[in-house]
Amino acid sequence: MFEATKVGRSVDKETFAAEQEGLRTDLLTVQRELKQTDIPVIILIAGVEGAGKGAVVNRLNEWLDTRGVQTFAFWDETDEERQRPRYWRFWRSLPPRGEMGILFGGWYLAPIEHRFRSICNDAELDAELTRIVDFERTLIQDGALIIKFWFHLSAKDQKKRLKELARDDRSRWKMLPDKTKFAEQYSLFEYIAERIIRHTDRGISPWYLIEAADPRYRDLTMGKTLLHAIRKRLGQPVAVESPPSEEPELPNVPSAQITVLDHLDLTLALPRDEYRNELGRLQSEINDLAWQAYKEKRSIVLVFEGVDAGGKGGAISRITNAIDARLYRAIPIAAPTDEEKAHHYLWRFWRHIPRAGYITIYDRSWYGRVLVERVEGFAGEAAWRRAYTEINQFEEQLVEGGIMLFKFWVHISQEEQLRRFEDRESTPYKRYKITDEDWRNREKWPQYKVAVNEMIGRTSTESASWTLIEGNDKPYARVKVLRTLCAGIKAGLERGVCKQSGYIPCGEKRPPPEAK
Amino acid sequence: MFEATKVGRSVDKETFAAEQEGLRTDLLTVQRELKQTDIPVIILIAGVEGAGKGAVVNRLNEWLDTRGVQTFAFWDETDEERQRPRYWRFWRSLPPRGEMGILFGGWYLAPIEHRFRSICNDAELDAELTRIVDFERTLIQDGALIIKFWFHLSAKDQKKRLKELARDDRSRWKMLPDKTKFAEQYSLFEYIAERIIRHTDRGISPWYLIEAADPRYRDLTMGKTLLHAIRKRLGQPVAVESPPSEEPELPNVPSAQITVLDHLDLTLALPRDEYRNELGRLQSEINDLAWQAYKEKRSIVLVFEGVDAGGKGGAISRITNAIDARLYRAIPIAAPTDEEKAHHYLWRFWRHIPRAGYITIYDRSWYGRVLVERVEGFAGEAAWRRAYTEINQFEEQLVEGGIMLFKFWVHISQEEQLRRFEDRESTPYKRYKITDEDWRNREKWPQYKVAVNEMIGRTSTESASWTLIEGNDKPYARVKVLRTLCAGIKAGLERGVCKQSGYIPCGEKRPPPEAK
Repeated sequence: MFEATKVGRSVDKETFAAEQEGLRTDLLTVQRELKQTDIPVIILIAGVEGAGKGAVVNRLNEWLDTRGVQTFAFWDETDEERQRPRYWRFWRSLPPRGEMGILFGGWYLAPIEHRFRSICNDAELDAELTRIVDFERTLIQDGALIIKFWFHLSAKDQKKRLKELARDDRSRWKMLPDKTKFAEQYSLFEYIAERIIRHTDRGISPWYLIEAADPRYRDLTMGKTLLHAIRKRLGQPVAVESPPSEEPELPNVPSAQITVLDHLDLTLALPRDEYRNELGRLQSEINDLAWQAYKEKRSIVLVFEGVDAGGKGGAISRITNAIDARLYRAIPIAAPTDEEKAHHYLWRFWRHIPRAGYITIYDRSWYGRVLVERVEGFAGEAAWRRAYTEINQFEEQLVEGGIMLFKFWVHISQEEQLRRFEDRESTPYKRYKITDEDWRNREKWPQYKVAVNEMIGRTSTESASWTLIEGNDKPYARVKVLRTLCAGIKAGLERGVCKQSGYIPCGEKRPPPEAK
Repeated sequence: MFEATKVGRSVDKETFAAEQEGLRTDLLTVQRELKQTDIPVIILIAGVEGAGKGAVVNRLNEWLDTRGVQTFAFWDETDEERQRPRYWRFWRSLPPRGEMGILFGGWYLAPIEHRFRSICNDAELDAELTRIVDFERTLIQDGALIIKFWFHLSAKDQKKRLKELARDDRSRWKMLPDKTKFAEQYSLFEYIAERIIRHTDRGISPWYLIEAADPRYRDLTMGKTLLHAIRKRLGQPVAVESPPSEEPELPNVPSAQITVLDHLDLTLALPRDEYRNELGRLQSEINDLAWQAYKEKRSIVLVFEGVDAGGKGGAISRITNAIDARLYRAIPIAAPTDEEKAHHYLWRFWRHIPRAGYITIYDRSWYGRVLVERVEGFAGEAAWRRAYTEINQFEEQLVEGGIMLFKFWVHISQEEQLRRFEDRESTPYKRYKITDEDWRNREKWPQYKVAVNEMIGRTSTESASWTLIEGNDKPYARVKVLRTLCAGIKAGLERGVCKQSGYIPCGEKRPPPEAK
C-alpha cells in the first residue's frame, strides 16, 4: 500500500514558492466560502513518526485564517475526559458548521498504539475500526467533510528524520523517548497502518497517502489535496452512502395497526396506601443505590420520553426528591441553543454525559429525532431513519463506558390525556403546563403511535432496553419507574463493569444480559 | 452574631404541611416568572457541619421545578479546574439568565477551610473576602440575584446531629472522617464564620442566618426567605451600589485633548532586511519559549486590540506561524452566541482561559466593553465605567493563577488607515476584510481615541500592562510585538510563579515587578 509513498518525490524551492502563493489565496477563498455553509470540516493528521505531522499542521495554520480553525492534539487525557465514555473527548473537539478542526491522530491514535503495544489483537482492532467507520459516517451524513491524511516515510528516511529530531530541542518528539520503538519496529507499524487504512478508507471519507520525505512536496501536496476536497464538497450535497433500511410493507388488515403500545394494560393501578409505603421504601433504596454508585464511580443515565401529560415530570420528581441533589443533573430538552445547532444533533446530549459517579436525567432526549422531528417533518426521512443506528451506536458507547442506561416510555390512553389536558386548563397553577402545541400534537396521535412503535422496536437493544410504563394510574407508574431503576442499578452494580484498557471494546468480556 | 440562631425555634408537623403547600405553589409561580426575565439567581448554601445543608438542597429541588435549577457541589476539583485560575470553576457553574444555580459553599468553601486549618491567617482571609465582595458585586450589577444562607446549630445540637449522621450510611458526612474536627473546634469555626459573614454581608447580597436545629423550621424559613427575595428582585431593577468614579472635568484648552496615542512615534520603521533577520530569530525564540512554558506548565494569554486595519491579524499570524499549533488557540471575538449572551459579559472569555502550559490568543477581547460597546452605546455608561474595575480584577486573577498576560494595542494614523482601507477595496483577495462598518467606525475616530486613552490609563496595571505598538510600518510593529513577547515570557519563566495553596492570594509574596 505504501509503495507509492517511497518513490523520492520532491519539490524545489522556487516551484514551492511560486505554487504556495496561489494555493494560499485559494485556501483563504474556500475558507471564506465555507463560512457561509453549514459544513464542518474535519482534518485528520496521521502517519509514521518523524513524517512531520506537527510541521504540516503548523503550515496549515500559516496558510489558513486561524480564526475559524481549531487544532486538537490528544496528548494528555484530562480526568474529565477519562471519566466519561471514550468518544466524549472527540465529540467536544468537533468543529461547528462552517469552521475547520485539525485533529492530530484523533480517534485513530489509540487503536494504532494499542495494537502496536499488543494491548489488542487484530480482531479487536477490526472491531474498533468498524466503529470508527460508523462514527465517521454519522458525521458525514450530517454534512461534515472529513479529510484524512497519512504521511509516510521509508524505513531509511524515517531513521534519518528521527535522528535529526532527537537532536532538536524544540521537538515534541524529544519528550517522548518511548516512541523510539516505532522506528525499531517499522514493519509492524506499517502492517498496522495498512490494516487501519484499508478498513477505514471509504469513498465518503478517504485517506490521502502522502510521501513525507521532502517537506516541500509533503506540504504542497497536502495543501492542494485539501483545497480540492473542500472545493469539491462545496459544489456537492452530502453523499448519503446507501439508503437506510425501510419498514416492511404492511398488509391491508386492521391488525397491521397494532403496536406495542396496544399491549399495555392501562388499567393497572396501585391503591393509595400501598403506593405510600412502596414509594417511601423505594425512594430510600434508590438514595442508597445512588450513593453506592457514586462511591464505585459508576454513572447513570436516565431517559424519559412519553405522551404529553403522561406523567414524565411526576415520575422524574419522585426520583430527584429521593436522591441527593449533588449527585444528579436534570436536563430538560427544549429548543437547541445556536451553539448546539452548529453541531450534529447528538452533540448536545454528549455534552451532558455525566462524569464517573454522577447521574444525568434527560427529560426528553435524542429520541426527539425519531419522534417529534419525524412526525413534524423537522428531519427528513433519510435523517430520522439513520438516527436509529446512530442512537444505538451512541448508547452502546455509553454502556461500554460503564454507564448504566435506563430508558422509559411513559404511556397513557387518549382519553386519559384528554382528562389531564382539561384538568390542567381548569387548575390555575397547572395552566402553564398546557399550550396550543399540546393540542396540536394530540391530533397527531396515530402518527406518534407508529413512530413510537418503530422506535421501541429498533432501539430496544440488549444493552439499552426500553421500559414501557403504564401511566394512566400515576401511583402505579411512579412505583414501576422506581422499581425498575432500583432493580437495574442494583444488578448493574453487582455485575460491575469490565475494565476497558483504552479503546478495546469490551463486548466479548461482557457477561450475559441479566434475566428480565 | 449567632445568638438568634440558638433559641430553639421549631415548627410542628401540621403547620409545616399547611404552610408548605402554599409555599410550593408560590415558589413555582415565581420560578416561572423568573424564566421571563434576564435575572440569574444564585443560591449559596453554607453553615456549620451537621446543619443539614444537603437536606436543605434536596428540599429545594423538591419544591422547585428542577428544569431550570442546577446544583453544584465543589467536592473534587478536576484537573481541568486545577490547571486554571481559581475562579474558573465558579464561572462555569454560574446559572444563565432566568434560571437558578444552587451552590454548596461556593467561593466561601476554601476560605473557611483554609482559615480553619491555619493555612492562612486573618489578614489573608480578609483579603480574600474583599475579592469575594467584588466578585459578587460584579455579578449583581450584571443583574444577578445572590441569596446566601447560613445554617447554624448550637454546640450541643451540633454534637447530637453529628452523632446521628455518623450512624447513617446514606450520609455523605460519614465519608469525611476528618470533619469531626469541626465539632471539636466549634468555637474556632464560629469565629471564622462570623468574620466571613461580617465582611461579606452587604446590602446587595445579604446573608440570611437560619437556626437549623429543627428541620421543619429550617426548611420553611429558607423557603419563605427565598420566595421573598426573588419576589422583591422581580419588582426591582438592579441596585447599583454606588456610581463608579468619573473622569476629571477637562479645562477648555487644546492640550486637554492630547492622549497617550498622540505620543506614539508612528514614523518608526524597520528596513526590510533587518526585518527578515529579526523575524526569523524572534520566531525561533518564541517557539522555544512556548515549549519551555509548556514543560513548566505555565499558561500564556495574549490580548490584541487596535484600530481597524491596524495590523492585528498580521501580528497574530507572525506568532501563530512560529508556535506549534498544538500549543495555542486563537479566539476571534465576534458576536456572542446565545449561551454567551445569557451570562455576564466576562463569561465568554473565562471559558477560553487555557489550561496549564497552553496559550490563548484573543483577537479582540473583553476590552470591547470599554471600546466598541462604549462608543456605539451598546453598554450604558454605568456598565462600561464599572468594567474597568471588573477587568482589572479579572486580569489580576489570571496573573495570580500563574498566567502570563500580554496586552497589545496596535495603532496607526488616520491617514494610514485610509490608505489601507482603499488598498483593501482595490485588492480582490483583501476585499472581504473591509465592510461598511469599518467606514462607519472610522468616522468615530475621536470618540475611540478618548475611549482608548481612558482604557489604557485605567487598565494598565502592575500585573497587566499594555504595550502600545506603533503600527504604521508593519515590519516594525510585528517585530515589536514579538520582541515584547519573547522578553516578557522569558522574564515570566525566570521569575516563576509563587505556589498558591488553595485560595491564598499571593500578592505579598510576589517579587517586585520587572524593570520596564
